[in-house]
Amino acid sequence: MQRTRFGDMACSIARTLDVAGEPWSPLIIRDALVGITHFDEMQRDLGISRKVLAERLKWLEASGILERRAYSQRPPRYEYTLTQKGYELCDVLLAMTAWGDRWTAGDAGPPVLLRHRTCGEVTHSEAHCAACGEVLHADDVAFEVGPGAAAQA
Amino acid sequence: MQRTRFGDMACSIARTLDVAGEPWSPLIIRDALVGITHFDEMQRDLGISRKVLAERLKWLEASGILERRAYSQRPPRYEYTLTQKGYELCDVLLAMTAWGDRWTAGDAGPPVLLRHRTCGEVTHSEAHCAACGEVLHADDVAFEVGPGAAAQA
Repeated sequence: MQRTRFGDMACSIARTLDVAGEPWSPLIIRDALVGITHFDEMQRDLGISRKVLAERLKWLEASGILERRAYSQRPPRYEYTLTQKGYELCDVLLAMTAWGDRWTAGDAGPPVLLRHRTCGEVTHSEAHCAACGEVLHADDVAFEVGPGAAAQA
Repeated sequence: MQRTRFGDMACSIARTLDVAGEPWSPLIIRDALVGITHFDEMQRDLGISRKVLAERLKWLEASGILERRAYSQRPPRYEYTLTQKGYELCDVLLAMTAWGDRWTAGDAGPPVLLRHRTCGEVTHSEAHCAACGEVLHADDVAFEVGPGAAAQA
């Protein structure tokens, strides 16, 4: 049988992709992060069709990533802001930015620079071990069966 | 005009999604990382149609993420392994895993545990500032116009 959904796989990558696994969702989350929160602003910024944007916003709201709030009553207008769950998903976006800057920016260089407010340096996100604090890449890790493995569909 | 491609946006998130911005590509990369490298193995593991898998493998090879090598001549059979570019994309997968474990695993707990070979602890990937080493989240960063910003389509 062929798979059509991803949320039922016993894999946190698949489940994350079930929420944000096509190009528009991460870009909508990016916009919400930088303060582009109104429907019309997002539509213009992304060059997305109104129909697709409305669908994705509805899905991201239902998935607990975005919160919808009315900012005008007449006419009714809404803004979309990140929940804590949505905000934490931005760690994934920072990892995408680091990889994209390194492998896709070419001679022109990165389109956006990230300056760490605390240390003042232009920086990028780097994966570290949450336990010991050292740099962590995929080969540094052994994968073991976790408690939720039995949920495999 | 409505956007149909993402690689021409002056945004490293969009450009990363242009390479791996649908659910299958990251899951194929995950399989390659853990040693599921043959076409038939991937097909069984993922529950993906042979047609879609063949398309995605071709695209990931053309994008420089996977390398194809013959492991049998008669019959001709190929394995797909990660390039350095593809291996580094696994940092994004580690970030997805951390978020998915936290927000999608539910009461069952994470399906897979990551043990850091160096320190021996069960861990997850955490975003740190590449300059100062401190923990880094999206709100800790100021976004500035980068040298590649003019490439905006």
